[in-house]
Amino acid sequence: MPDKVRIALDAMGGDHGAAVVLPGAELSLVRHPDSEFILVGDRAVLDPLLAKLPRLAAASTLIHTDVAIRMDDKPSQALRHGRWKSSMWLTLDAVKKREADVAVSAGNTGALMAMAKFVLKTMPGVARPAIAAVWPTLRGESIVLDVGATIGANARQLIEFALMGEAMARCLWGVERPTVGLLNIGVEEIKGVEQVREAGRLLRDLRLPLEYSGFIEGDDIAKGTVDVVVTEGFTGNIALKTAEGTANQLAHYLKLALNRTFMSRLGALLARGAFDALRERIDPRKHNGGVFLGLNGIVVKSHGGTDALGFAAAIDVAVEMARNDLVAKIAADVAEMNRHIGEARSQQAVEA
Amino acid sequence: MPDKVRIALDAMGGDHGAAVVLPGAELSLVRHPDSEFILVGDRAVLDPLLAKLPRLAAASTLIHTDVAIRMDDKPSQALRHGRWKSSMWLTLDAVKKREADVAVSAGNTGALMAMAKFVLKTMPGVARPAIAAVWPTLRGESIVLDVGATIGANARQLIEFALMGEAMARCLWGVERPTVGLLNIGVEEIKGVEQVREAGRLLRDLRLPLEYSGFIEGDDIAKGTVDVVVTEGFTGNIALKTAEGTANQLAHYLKLALNRTFMSRLGALLARGAFDALRERIDPRKHNGGVFLGLNGIVVKSHGGTDALGFAAAIDVAVEMARNDLVAKIAADVAEMNRHIGEARSQQAVEA
Repeated sequence: MPDKVRIALDAMGGDHGAAVVLPGAELSLVRHPDSEFILVGDRAVLDPLLAKLPRLAAASTLIHTDVAIRMDDKPSQALRHGRWKSSMWLTLDAVKKREADVAVSAGNTGALMAMAKFVLKTMPGVARPAIAAVWPTLRGESIVLDVGATIGANARQLIEFALMGEAMARCLWGVERPTVGLLNIGVEEIKGVEQVREAGRLLRDLRLPLEYSGFIEGDDIAKGTVDVVVTEGFTGNIALKTAEGTANQLAHYLKLALNRTFMSRLGALLARGAFDALRERIDPRKHNGGVFLGLNGIVVKSHGGTDALGFAAAIDVAVEMARNDLVAKIAADVAEMNRHIGEARSQQAVEA
Repeated sequence: MPDKVRIALDAMGGDHGAAVVLPGAELSLVRHPDSEFILVGDRAVLDPLLAKLPRLAAASTLIHTDVAIRMDDKPSQALRHGRWKSSMWLTLDAVKKREADVAVSAGNTGALMAMAKFVLKTMPGVARPAIAAVWPTLRGESIVLDVGATIGANARQLIEFALMGEAMARCLWGVERPTVGLLNIGVEEIKGVEQVREAGRLLRDLRLPLEYSGFIEGDDIAKGTVDVVVTEGFTGNIALKTAEGTANQLAHYLKLALNRTFMSRLGALLARGAFDALRERIDPRKHNGGVFLGLNGIVVKSHGGTDALGFAAAIDVAVEMARNDLVAKIAADVAEMNRHIGEARSQQAVEA
């Protein structure tokens, strides 16, 4: 467990590049003064910005490259043009070379995942990486995964997601045995796809470092029924974006309603503190940072369009993951799972 | 297109049974004075209620049964115990016998779908029925299907959902060529499961009475990007419930925020009109009524826990569907699709 967390930043990633990444790093550095940064990007762009951020400059080293992955590059294009030399690649490479404990990028998700798999490789014992989102709920926060790394997952992969999610929950919140639910639909006779049911049976039977809570439904995510919500990437991505859409819709309705009459505008003015609190509560920048799980290294993906505050939140997540050694926790849990599955198999063989 | 719509009501269905169903019917009758009702349920329960609703009583005939499907009955149990004689069965049977144009029940979804398939049968040319939800959006309303009738769908079934959805959109809103989008995820290199991609190709190539808008993502639902959102039932159900959960979460946050201080409470009081308008806008009772599509008859499912206002909204949906002859529209569109697919095949055969 490193005291000083070393963070590699793709300084050119995201819609706004270094203009957001560097001030974001400065903000996070204030909260975590022990952090050290490796800034990867174009020196001509970074130097003038760093001149205005002396605190960050003092805590950073710089790796120069003038190649950047564009936000609309397809993963295959990104790999073709950006291998060995792009800021995204070199950021991931710093983690691979153990010069950094964690990588953060606001670059495009597909390219980042493709490069991360290429550079860091998938962990032994894990079939596929996943992207985990931290989801604000009525009970605080939950982890939802996979929100779009891949499509589809068999029972074994869903169990791996469960393990990676509980390891992340332990890092983030320090809970000993996080509760885990499998996202499913409620119609009795159907009760979910076979993979989900099989995963449910395995989660019940295997002795894993988690509390299996059974199937949950879509509305349980916002309720915060469980610490970790497990689903495959297609459904997870659609659930995440549907929730974002609904939140924006309601915020828009609220604004319209409050602007309707003089009395409502006056009321809104008086209740401004309340609305500020509400806005802060649902501020998507506070829940910025999708964590790539299942690779030999931690990668945090920030929203591409976020500002310095949002990017700082993504770095904060990265710090927690690195400080609590997420990768080692996942490795240990996956090894334990494989041991249990092996035991269960030999038990069956003995009984058969 | 019938002038008088004849509506069969499962008077015993839902959490509150006749105490909600009958007053709900009265409310809808005021809006649609031409409606006629067949009330199916226990005469001993219905008669005293009808005595207080003379207007409804005058527009209704009664079919007596003292057998009711419980809200927690599994579909198989419901079929075993409720066949031929339950209020749910007899309500559907009235549509089958053409004594009613449409059936409405607040009974449990799984049982209602199982019975509806049994009694009404799936339409010729349609592989599977779907449940369509009317979803409030920033642009008004959209139809989303399937929200949980079945799990999984191949490309052909997704096209059928698209056709059933556009037919429903034409009935509800009178638009000539509803826009249709396929729900998918945005990561470039992945771009959705094979069935969804294949459905996209077919929707582009076939000449169907709809405007195909391509793939959409989860946040497009709330934006109202398209009139009809097509997806398979597992994802659709999770999206629907995730949105419901998010809406409840934000409403709860808002309430908490406004109760925090004296000033915010005062502001909330002044802006009460705005909050009433907002509440009405997101009132789930106004968007009550899942429509079962693809059967030889129209069935509308009301939320089990709704009140008279909500049940009336479900009846209103049923009236629109029956008045605009939804079943005939779907039958015509499915026949046309099959003709086009046949033509495309013979064209390919000629070219090959």
